[in-house]
Amino acid sequence: MGSSGRRIRVFATVEGFVQMEGFVPVAVDVLRATSTICTALAAGAAGVRVFLEPAEALAAARESGGGVVLGGERDGVLIPGFDLGNSPAEYTADTVGGREVLFTTSNGTRAILAGAALGDVYIGSFLNRAALAQALAGRDLALICAGTLGRWSPEDLGCAGALCDAAGPAVELDETGVLARALYRDYRERLGQLMRDSLHGRRLAEIGLEADLDRCAAIDSLDGVPVLRGGRITLIRIP
Amino acid sequence: MGSSGRRIRVFATVEGFVQMEGFVPVAVDVLRATSTICTALAAGAAGVRVFLEPAEALAAARESGGGVVLGGERDGVLIPGFDLGNSPAEYTADTVGGREVLFTTSNGTRAILAGAALGDVYIGSFLNRAALAQALAGRDLALICAGTLGRWSPEDLGCAGALCDAAGPAVELDETGVLARALYRDYRERLGQLMRDSLHGRRLAEIGLEADLDRCAAIDSLDGVPVLRGGRITLIRIP
Repeated sequence: MGSSGRRIRVFATVEGFVQMEGFVPVAVDVLRATSTICTALAAGAAGVRVFLEPAEALAAARESGGGVVLGGERDGVLIPGFDLGNSPAEYTADTVGGREVLFTTSNGTRAILAGAALGDVYIGSFLNRAALAQALAGRDLALICAGTLGRWSPEDLGCAGALCDAAGPAVELDETGVLARALYRDYRERLGQLMRDSLHGRRLAEIGLEADLDRCAAIDSLDGVPVLRGGRITLIRIP
Repeated sequence: MGSSGRRIRVFATVEGFVQMEGFVPVAVDVLRATSTICTALAAGAAGVRVFLEPAEALAAARESGGGVVLGGERDGVLIPGFDLGNSPAEYTADTVGGREVLFTTSNGTRAILAGAALGDVYIGSFLNRAALAQALAGRDLALICAGTLGRWSPEDLGCAGALCDAAGPAVELDETGVLARALYRDYRERLGQLMRDSLHGRRLAEIGLEADLDRCAAIDSLDGVPVLRGGRITLIRIP
Protein backbone atom coordinates (compact mmCIF):
# COMPACT_ATOMS: atom_id res chain seq x y z
CA MET A 1 0.00 0.00 0.00
CA GLY A 2 1.35 3.34 -1.06
CA SER A 3 2.45 6.48 0.68
CA SER A 4 0.94 9.25 -1.46
CA GLY A 5 -1.51 9.87 1.33
CA ARG A 6 -4.38 9.33 -1.06
CA ARG A 7 -6.80 6.67 0.14
CA ILE A 8 -9.52 4.58 -1.47
CA ARG A 9 -11.87 2.36 0.52
CA VAL A 10 -14.02 -0.22 -1.25
CA PHE A 11 -17.30 -1.55 0.14
CA ALA A 12 -18.28 -4.82 -1.55
CA THR A 13 -21.95 -4.39 -0.65
CA VAL A 14 -24.21 -1.50 0.34
CA GLU A 15 -24.88 -3.33 3.60
CA GLY A 16 -21.19 -3.13 4.50
CA PHE A 17 -20.89 0.59 3.75
CA VAL A 18 -19.76 2.82 6.60
CA GLN A 19 -19.81 6.58 6.10
CA MET A 20 -16.36 8.09 6.23
CA GLU A 21 -15.73 11.78 6.83
CA GLY A 22 -13.77 13.39 4.00
CA PHE A 23 -14.21 10.50 1.56
CA VAL A 24 -16.14 11.22 -1.65
CA PRO A 25 -18.78 8.53 -2.18
CA VAL A 26 -19.02 6.83 -5.58
CA ALA A 27 -21.89 4.40 -6.19
CA VAL A 28 -21.29 1.46 -8.54
CA ASP A 29 -23.96 -0.85 -9.95
CA VAL A 30 -22.56 -2.01 -13.26
CA LEU A 31 -25.47 -4.36 -14.06
CA ARG A 32 -27.16 -2.07 -14.64
CA ALA A 33 -28.35 0.97 -12.68
CA THR A 34 -25.27 3.17 -12.78
CA SER A 35 -24.43 2.16 -16.35
CA THR A 36 -27.96 3.09 -17.36
CA ILE A 37 -27.88 6.44 -15.52
CA CYS A 38 -24.60 7.33 -17.24
CA THR A 39 -26.12 6.35 -20.59
CA ALA A 40 -29.36 8.30 -20.01
CA LEU A 41 -27.49 11.50 -19.21
CA ALA A 42 -25.12 11.02 -22.13
CA ALA A 43 -28.22 10.66 -24.31
CA GLY A 44 -29.40 14.07 -23.19
CA ALA A 45 -31.70 13.42 -20.23
CA ALA A 46 -32.12 16.68 -18.28
CA GLY A 47 -31.59 14.90 -14.96
CA VAL A 48 -32.21 11.67 -13.07
CA ARG A 49 -33.96 11.44 -9.72
CA VAL A 50 -33.59 8.14 -7.89
CA PHE A 51 -36.12 6.48 -5.59
CA LEU A 52 -35.91 3.44 -3.32
CA GLU A 53 -39.42 2.22 -4.15
CA PRO A 54 -41.54 2.18 -7.33
CA ALA A 55 -44.46 3.77 -5.45
CA GLU A 56 -42.32 6.80 -4.58
CA ALA A 57 -41.28 7.24 -8.20
CA LEU A 58 -44.89 6.90 -9.38
CA ALA A 59 -46.04 9.49 -6.83
CA ALA A 60 -43.30 11.89 -7.91
CA ALA A 61 -44.30 11.41 -11.56
CA ARG A 62 -47.86 12.28 -10.68
CA GLU A 63 -46.80 15.39 -8.76
CA SER A 64 -44.63 16.53 -11.65
CA GLY A 65 -47.67 17.05 -13.83
CA GLY A 66 -46.19 15.00 -16.68
CA GLY A 67 -43.33 15.17 -19.12
CA VAL A 68 -41.14 12.87 -17.05
CA VAL A 69 -39.93 9.35 -17.88
CA LEU A 70 -40.33 6.53 -15.34
CA GLY A 71 -37.53 3.98 -15.56
CA GLY A 72 -36.09 1.03 -13.66
CA GLU A 73 -36.65 -2.60 -12.76
CA ARG A 74 -37.56 -5.15 -10.16
CA ASP A 75 -36.12 -8.65 -10.65
CA GLY A 76 -34.52 -7.39 -13.84
CA VAL A 77 -37.78 -6.53 -15.60
CA LEU A 78 -40.00 -3.51 -16.31
CA ILE A 79 -42.12 -2.22 -13.41
CA PRO A 80 -45.89 -2.00 -14.11
CA GLY A 81 -46.81 1.57 -15.01
CA PHE A 82 -43.23 2.51 -15.93
CA ASP A 83 -42.09 3.74 -19.33
CA LEU A 84 -38.66 2.13 -19.54
CA GLY A 85 -36.83 -0.82 -18.00
CA ASN A 86 -33.23 -0.86 -16.84
CA SER A 87 -31.39 -1.53 -20.10
CA PRO A 88 -28.99 1.22 -21.22
CA ALA A 89 -30.21 0.53 -24.77
CA GLU A 90 -33.64 1.95 -23.90
CA TYR A 91 -32.23 5.34 -22.89
CA THR A 92 -31.75 7.25 -26.12
CA ALA A 93 -32.14 10.84 -27.28
CA ASP A 94 -35.60 9.81 -28.52
CA THR A 95 -36.82 8.39 -25.23
CA VAL A 96 -35.17 10.67 -22.67
CA GLY A 97 -33.64 13.66 -24.51
CA GLY A 98 -34.37 16.89 -22.59
CA ARG A 99 -36.59 15.05 -20.09
CA GLU A 100 -36.35 14.22 -16.40
CA VAL A 101 -35.97 10.51 -15.57
CA LEU A 102 -37.46 9.12 -12.34
CA PHE A 103 -35.56 5.94 -11.62
CA THR A 104 -35.66 2.99 -9.21
CA THR A 105 -33.91 -0.40 -9.25
CA SER A 106 -33.47 -3.33 -6.83
CA ASN A 107 -29.91 -2.61 -5.75
CA GLY A 108 -28.40 0.39 -7.50
CA THR A 109 -30.61 3.13 -6.16
CA ARG A 110 -29.91 1.95 -2.60
CA ALA A 111 -26.16 2.28 -3.22
CA ILE A 112 -26.61 5.79 -4.59
CA LEU A 113 -28.79 6.97 -1.72
CA ALA A 114 -26.59 5.29 0.94
CA GLY A 115 -23.82 7.74 0.10
CA ALA A 116 -26.03 10.82 -0.01
CA ALA A 117 -25.69 11.67 3.69
CA LEU A 118 -22.05 12.58 2.98
CA GLY A 119 -23.00 15.15 0.34
CA ASP A 120 -22.58 14.71 -3.40
CA VAL A 121 -22.58 11.14 -4.70
CA TYR A 122 -20.72 10.33 -7.89
CA ILE A 123 -22.12 7.70 -10.23
CA GLY A 124 -19.55 5.12 -11.34
CA SER A 125 -19.57 2.54 -14.11
CA PHE A 126 -17.10 1.06 -16.55
CA LEU A 127 -18.54 3.43 -19.18
CA ASN A 128 -17.35 6.61 -17.45
CA ARG A 129 -14.40 5.14 -15.55
CA ALA A 130 -11.68 7.37 -17.06
CA ALA A 131 -13.77 10.55 -16.85
CA LEU A 132 -14.61 9.84 -13.22
CA ALA A 133 -11.02 9.01 -12.33
CA GLN A 134 -9.95 12.32 -13.86
CA ALA A 135 -12.70 14.33 -12.13
CA LEU A 136 -11.83 12.83 -8.73
CA ALA A 137 -8.04 12.75 -9.10
CA GLY A 138 -6.33 13.17 -5.74
CA ARG A 139 -9.51 12.84 -3.66
CA ASP A 140 -10.06 10.18 -1.00
CA LEU A 141 -12.83 7.91 -2.27
CA ALA A 142 -15.41 5.58 -0.74
CA LEU A 143 -16.48 3.20 -3.51
CA ILE A 144 -19.89 1.72 -2.71
CA CYS A 145 -20.65 -1.43 -4.69
CA ALA A 146 -24.36 -2.18 -4.97
CA GLY A 147 -23.90 -5.94 -5.04
CA THR A 148 -26.89 -8.16 -5.64
CA LEU A 149 -29.42 -8.68 -2.86
CA GLY A 150 -26.82 -8.27 -0.13
CA ARG A 151 -24.07 -10.31 -1.81
CA TRP A 152 -21.00 -8.89 -3.55
CA SER A 153 -20.95 -9.03 -7.35
CA PRO A 154 -17.88 -9.51 -9.54
CA GLU A 155 -18.87 -6.78 -11.99
CA ASP A 156 -19.25 -4.13 -9.28
CA LEU A 157 -16.10 -5.12 -7.46
CA GLY A 158 -14.22 -5.21 -10.78
CA CYS A 159 -15.42 -1.70 -11.64
CA ALA A 160 -14.35 -0.42 -8.21
CA GLY A 161 -11.03 -2.10 -8.96
CA ALA A 162 -10.79 -0.24 -12.27
CA LEU A 163 -11.11 3.03 -10.35
CA CYS A 164 -8.45 1.86 -7.86
CA ASP A 165 -6.17 0.89 -10.71
CA ALA A 166 -6.64 4.28 -12.36
CA ALA A 167 -5.43 5.95 -9.15
CA GLY A 168 -1.92 4.64 -9.79
CA PRO A 169 0.44 2.52 -7.72
CA ALA A 170 0.91 4.96 -4.82
CA VAL A 171 -2.73 4.97 -3.70
CA GLU A 172 -3.43 3.46 -0.29
CA LEU A 173 -6.07 0.74 -0.60
CA ASP A 174 -7.84 -1.29 2.04
CA GLU A 175 -7.98 -5.10 1.76
CA THR A 176 -11.14 -5.00 -0.33
CA GLY A 177 -9.54 -2.43 -2.63
CA VAL A 178 -6.54 -4.68 -3.13
CA LEU A 179 -8.91 -7.50 -4.04
CA ALA A 180 -11.02 -5.34 -6.35
CA ARG A 181 -7.96 -4.08 -8.20
CA ALA A 182 -6.69 -7.64 -8.68
CA LEU A 183 -10.05 -8.67 -10.12
CA TYR A 184 -9.97 -5.78 -12.58
CA ARG A 185 -6.41 -6.51 -13.64
CA ASP A 186 -7.21 -10.17 -14.25
CA TYR A 187 -10.20 -9.25 -16.47
CA ARG A 188 -9.18 -5.91 -17.97
CA GLU A 189 -8.84 -7.33 -21.47
CA ARG A 190 -12.05 -9.37 -21.21
CA LEU A 191 -14.59 -7.39 -19.23
CA GLY A 192 -17.42 -9.12 -21.07
CA GLN A 193 -16.20 -12.36 -19.53
CA LEU A 194 -16.22 -10.75 -16.09
CA MET A 195 -19.95 -10.10 -16.59
CA ARG A 196 -20.43 -13.74 -17.62
CA ASP A 197 -18.47 -15.05 -14.62
CA SER A 198 -21.01 -13.21 -12.43
CA LEU A 199 -24.11 -15.07 -11.27
CA HIS A 200 -26.08 -11.86 -11.70
CA GLY A 201 -24.73 -11.42 -15.22
CA ARG A 202 -25.64 -14.99 -16.14
CA ARG A 203 -29.12 -14.47 -14.76
CA LEU A 204 -29.59 -11.40 -16.95
CA ALA A 205 -28.38 -13.39 -19.96
CA GLU A 206 -30.90 -16.10 -19.14
CA ILE A 207 -33.80 -13.63 -19.25
CA GLY A 208 -32.73 -12.35 -22.68
CA LEU A 209 -30.57 -9.41 -21.65
CA GLU A 210 -27.13 -10.71 -22.67
CA ALA A 211 -26.49 -7.74 -24.98
CA ASP A 212 -26.55 -5.51 -21.88
CA LEU A 213 -23.52 -7.36 -20.50
CA ASP A 214 -21.39 -6.08 -23.35
CA ARG A 215 -22.98 -2.64 -23.29
CA CYS A 216 -22.08 -2.26 -19.62
CA ALA A 217 -18.52 -3.53 -20.24
CA ALA A 218 -17.66 -0.71 -22.70
CA ILE A 219 -14.98 0.85 -20.52
CA ASP A 220 -14.12 4.54 -20.92
CA SER A 221 -16.72 5.04 -23.64
CA LEU A 222 -18.53 8.06 -22.09
CA ASP A 223 -16.94 11.29 -20.96
CA GLY A 224 -19.56 12.73 -18.63
CA VAL A 225 -19.47 12.55 -14.84
CA PRO A 226 -22.92 12.18 -13.24
CA VAL A 227 -23.31 13.55 -9.72
CA LEU A 228 -26.23 13.37 -7.31
CA ARG A 229 -26.58 16.79 -5.76
CA GLY A 230 -29.69 18.21 -4.10
CA GLY A 231 -31.69 15.07 -4.92
CA ARG A 232 -30.98 15.09 -8.64
CA ILE A 233 -28.28 13.53 -10.82
CA THR A 234 -26.88 15.69 -13.58
CA LEU A 235 -23.79 15.64 -15.68
CA ILE A 236 -20.64 17.54 -14.84
CA ARG A 237 -18.34 17.78 -17.79
CA ILE A 238 -14.75 17.78 -16.66
CA PRO A 239 -12.77 20.94 -17.49
CA MET B 1 -15.98 -20.67 -16.34
CA GLY B 2 -14.79 -23.84 -17.99
CA SER B 3 -16.34 -27.02 -19.22
CA SER B 4 -13.91 -29.71 -18.04
CA GLY B 5 -16.50 -30.70 -15.49
CA ARG B 6 -13.98 -30.17 -12.72
CA ARG B 7 -15.19 -27.76 -10.06
CA ILE B 8 -13.56 -25.75 -7.29
CA ARG B 9 -15.55 -23.83 -4.69
CA VAL B 10 -13.82 -21.28 -2.46
CA PHE B 11 -15.09 -20.27 0.96
CA ALA B 12 -13.55 -16.97 2.08
CA THR B 13 -14.18 -17.70 5.76
CA VAL B 14 -14.84 -20.77 7.87
CA GLU B 15 -18.17 -19.23 8.85
CA GLY B 16 -19.29 -19.26 5.21
CA PHE B 17 -18.31 -22.89 4.61
CA VAL B 18 -21.06 -25.24 3.49
CA GLN B 19 -20.32 -28.94 3.25
CA MET B 20 -20.57 -30.23 -0.28
CA GLU B 21 -20.96 -33.90 -1.13
CA GLY B 22 -18.16 -35.18 -3.35
CA PHE B 23 -15.89 -32.16 -2.86
CA VAL B 24 -12.53 -32.79 -1.18
CA PRO B 25 -12.00 -30.23 1.62
CA VAL B 26 -8.73 -28.32 1.76
CA ALA B 27 -8.11 -26.04 4.76
CA VAL B 28 -5.99 -22.92 4.23
CA ASP B 29 -4.58 -20.69 6.97
CA VAL B 30 -1.44 -19.21 5.45
CA LEU B 31 -0.60 -17.01 8.47
CA ARG B 32 0.23 -19.34 9.96
CA ALA B 33 -1.44 -22.60 11.05
CA THR B 34 -1.40 -24.57 7.82
CA SER B 35 2.04 -23.25 6.84
CA THR B 36 3.34 -24.36 10.24
CA ILE B 37 1.72 -27.80 10.03
CA CYS B 38 3.29 -28.36 6.60
CA THR B 39 6.64 -27.26 7.99
CA ALA B 40 6.40 -29.44 11.12
CA LEU B 41 5.69 -32.57 9.09
CA ALA B 42 8.43 -31.72 6.58
CA ALA B 43 10.78 -31.41 9.57
CA GLY B 44 9.96 -34.96 10.58
CA ALA B 45 7.11 -34.67 13.08
CA ALA B 46 5.41 -38.07 13.40
CA GLY B 47 1.96 -36.51 13.19
CA VAL B 48 -0.09 -33.46 14.14
CA ARG B 49 -3.34 -33.59 16.10
CA VAL B 50 -5.42 -30.41 16.06
CA PHE B 51 -7.66 -29.08 18.82
CA LEU B 52 -10.13 -26.20 18.97
CA GLU B 53 -9.15 -25.14 22.48
CA PRO B 54 -5.87 -25.02 24.41
CA ALA B 55 -7.46 -26.93 27.31
CA GLU B 56 -8.25 -29.86 25.02
CA ALA B 57 -4.68 -29.99 23.76
CA LEU B 58 -3.30 -29.79 27.31
CA ALA B 59 -5.60 -32.61 28.43
CA ALA B 60 -4.53 -34.76 25.48
CA ALA B 61 -0.87 -34.09 26.28
CA ARG B 62 -1.46 -35.23 29.83
CA GLU B 63 -3.25 -38.40 28.67
CA SER B 64 -0.43 -39.19 26.26
CA GLY B 65 1.97 -39.73 29.14
CA GLY B 66 4.59 -37.43 27.66
CA GLY B 67 6.84 -37.24 24.63
CA VAL B 68 4.49 -34.95 22.71
CA VAL B 69 5.00 -31.32 21.69
CA LEU B 70 2.32 -28.72 22.43
CA GLY B 71 2.18 -25.97 19.81
CA GLY B 72 0.01 -23.08 18.69
CA GLU B 73 -1.09 -19.58 19.56
CA ARG B 74 -3.79 -17.27 20.79
CA ASP B 75 -3.63 -13.66 19.57
CA GLY B 76 -0.45 -14.58 17.71
CA VAL B 77 1.55 -15.52 20.79
CA LEU B 78 2.58 -18.63 22.74
CA ILE B 79 -0.08 -20.25 24.94
CA PRO B 80 0.86 -20.68 28.64
CA GLY B 81 2.06 -24.22 29.25
CA PHE B 82 2.80 -24.84 25.57
CA ASP B 83 6.21 -25.76 24.15
CA LEU B 84 6.10 -23.93 20.83
CA GLY B 85 4.26 -20.98 19.30
CA ASN B 86 2.88 -20.80 15.78
CA SER B 87 5.97 -19.79 13.80
CA PRO B 88 7.10 -22.29 11.15
CA ALA B 89 10.68 -21.43 12.22
CA GLU B 90 10.12 -23.12 15.58
CA TYR B 91 9.25 -26.46 13.99
CA THR B 92 12.58 -28.13 13.22
CA ALA B 93 13.98 -31.64 13.31
CA ASP B 94 15.36 -30.74 16.74
CA THR B 95 12.06 -29.64 18.24
CA VAL B 96 9.56 -31.98 16.59
CA GLY B 97 11.50 -34.74 14.75
CA GLY B 98 9.84 -38.11 15.39
CA ARG B 99 7.37 -36.61 17.84
CA GLU B 100 3.63 -36.03 17.89
CA VAL B 101 2.54 -32.38 17.80
CA LEU B 102 -0.67 -31.32 19.58
CA PHE B 103 -1.73 -28.07 17.94
CA THR B 104 -4.30 -25.31 18.39
CA THR B 105 -4.60 -21.83 16.88
CA SER B 106 -7.22 -19.06 16.79
CA ASN B 107 -8.49 -19.62 13.25
CA GLY B 108 -6.65 -22.39 11.44
CA THR B 109 -7.66 -25.35 13.54
CA ARG B 110 -11.31 -24.39 13.11
CA ALA B 111 -10.91 -24.42 9.33
CA ILE B 112 -9.29 -27.84 9.45
CA LEU B 113 -11.93 -29.35 11.71
CA ALA B 114 -14.83 -27.74 9.80
CA GLY B 115 -14.02 -29.94 6.81
CA ALA B 116 -13.54 -33.14 8.80
CA ALA B 117 -17.19 -34.22 8.62
CA LEU B 118 -16.67 -34.85 4.89
CA GLY B 119 -13.80 -37.29 5.50
CA ASP B 120 -10.14 -36.55 4.89
CA VAL B 121 -9.10 -32.91 5.05
CA TYR B 122 -6.08 -31.74 3.07
CA ILE B 123 -3.82 -29.06 4.51
CA GLY B 124 -3.07 -26.26 2.07
CA SER B 125 -0.47 -23.48 2.11
CA PHE B 126 1.71 -21.69 -0.40
CA LEU B 127 4.57 -23.95 0.72
CA ASN B 128 2.98 -27.15 -0.59
CA ARG B 129 0.80 -25.63 -3.30
CA ALA B 130 2.28 -27.57 -6.25
CA ALA B 131 2.40 -30.87 -4.38
CA LEU B 132 -1.20 -30.49 -3.28
CA ALA B 133 -2.36 -29.49 -6.76
CA GLN B 134 -0.69 -32.61 -8.13
CA ALA B 135 -2.10 -34.89 -5.43
CA LEU B 136 -5.63 -33.60 -6.00
CA ALA B 137 -5.52 -33.24 -9.79
CA GLY B 138 -8.94 -33.79 -11.33
CA ARG B 139 -10.84 -33.82 -8.02
CA ASP B 140 -13.62 -31.40 -7.12
CA LEU B 141 -12.33 -29.23 -4.28
CA ALA B 142 -13.86 -27.18 -1.46
CA LEU B 143 -11.19 -24.69 -0.39
CA ILE B 144 -11.86 -23.49 3.15
CA CYS B 145 -10.05 -20.27 4.02
CA ALA B 146 -9.59 -19.75 7.74
CA GLY B 147 -9.80 -15.97 7.55
CA THR B 148 -9.16 -13.92 10.65
CA LEU B 149 -11.80 -13.75 13.36
CA GLY B 150 -14.66 -14.16 10.90
CA ARG B 151 -13.30 -11.86 8.21
CA TRP B 152 -11.67 -12.95 4.95
CA SER B 153 -7.88 -12.53 4.70
CA PRO B 154 -5.94 -11.70 1.53
CA GLU B 155 -3.24 -14.32 2.19
CA ASP B 156 -5.75 -17.17 2.54
CA LEU B 157 -7.84 -16.10 -0.43
CA GLY B 158 -4.65 -15.66 -2.49
CA CYS B 159 -3.49 -19.17 -1.58
CA ALA B 160 -6.89 -20.61 -2.53
CA GLY B 161 -6.46 -18.68 -5.77
CA ALA B 162 -3.05 -20.26 -6.33
CA LEU B 163 -4.73 -23.67 -6.14
CA CYS B 164 -7.47 -22.51 -8.54
CA ASP B 165 -4.83 -21.20 -10.93
CA ALA B 166 -2.93 -24.50 -10.80
CA ALA B 167 -6.09 -26.30 -11.93
CA GLY B 168 -5.78 -24.72 -15.38
CA PRO B 169 -8.13 -22.59 -17.45
CA ALA B 170 -10.88 -25.20 -17.91
CA VAL B 171 -11.76 -25.54 -14.22
CA GLU B 172 -15.22 -24.32 -13.21
CA LEU B 173 -14.91 -21.76 -10.42
CA ASP B 174 -17.57 -20.04 -8.36
CA GLU B 175 -17.53 -16.25 -7.97
CA THR B 176 -15.24 -16.40 -4.94
CA GLY B 177 -12.89 -18.69 -6.85
CA VAL B 178 -12.72 -16.21 -9.72
CA LEU B 179 -11.86 -13.49 -7.22
CA ALA B 180 -9.28 -15.62 -5.40
CA ARG B 181 -7.55 -16.55 -8.64
CA ALA B 182 -7.39 -12.89 -9.68
CA LEU B 183 -5.80 -11.99 -6.35
CA TYR B 184 -3.17 -14.69 -6.77
CA ARG B 185 -2.40 -13.66 -10.34
CA ASP B 186 -1.96 -10.01 -9.32
CA TYR B 187 0.48 -10.97 -6.55
CA ARG B 188 2.13 -14.12 -7.90
CA GLU B 189 5.52 -12.44 -8.33
CA ARG B 190 5.32 -10.64 -4.98
CA LEU B 191 3.63 -12.92 -2.46
CA GLY B 192 5.53 -11.26 0.38
CA GLN B 193 3.70 -8.05 -0.52
CA LEU B 194 0.38 -9.91 -0.40
CA MET B 195 1.17 -10.75 3.23
CA ARG B 196 1.99 -7.10 3.90
CA ASP B 197 -1.21 -5.88 2.22
CA SER B 198 -3.10 -8.03 4.75
CA LEU B 199 -4.19 -6.46 8.03
CA HIS B 200 -3.42 -9.75 9.76
CA GLY B 201 0.04 -9.85 8.16
CA ARG B 202 0.77 -6.30 9.26
CA ARG B 203 -0.35 -7.12 12.77
CA LEU B 204 2.07 -10.07 12.90
CA ALA B 205 4.86 -7.79 11.67
CA GLU B 206 4.04 -5.30 14.40
CA ILE B 207 4.49 -7.95 17.11
CA GLY B 208 7.92 -8.91 15.75
CA LEU B 209 6.94 -11.76 13.45
CA GLU B 210 7.66 -10.19 10.06
CA ALA B 211 10.09 -12.94 9.06
CA ASP B 212 7.18 -15.37 9.17
CA LEU B 213 5.49 -13.44 6.36
CA ASP B 214 8.26 -14.38 3.97
CA ARG B 215 8.53 -17.92 5.32
CA CYS B 216 4.84 -18.48 4.62
CA ALA B 217 5.15 -16.94 1.13
CA ALA B 218 7.72 -19.51 -0.07
CA ILE B 219 5.51 -21.05 -2.73
CA ASP B 220 6.09 -24.64 -3.88
CA SER B 221 9.00 -25.11 -1.46
CA LEU B 222 7.76 -28.34 0.21
CA ASP B 223 6.74 -31.53 -1.51
CA GLY B 224 4.69 -33.30 1.14
CA VAL B 225 0.90 -33.38 1.28
CA PRO B 226 -0.50 -33.35 4.83
CA VAL B 227 -3.88 -35.00 5.33
CA LEU B 228 -6.11 -35.16 8.40
CA ARG B 229 -7.41 -38.71 8.60
CA GLY B 230 -8.77 -40.42 11.70
CA GLY B 231 -8.03 -37.40 13.86
CA ARG B 232 -4.38 -37.10 12.92
CA ILE B 233 -2.48 -35.21 10.23
CA THR B 234 0.33 -37.09 8.52
CA LEU B 235 2.22 -36.67 5.31
CA ILE B 236 1.29 -38.43 2.12
CA ARG B 237 4.10 -38.31 -0.35
CA ILE B 238 2.77 -38.15 -3.86
CA PRO B 239 3.69 -41.13 -6.08
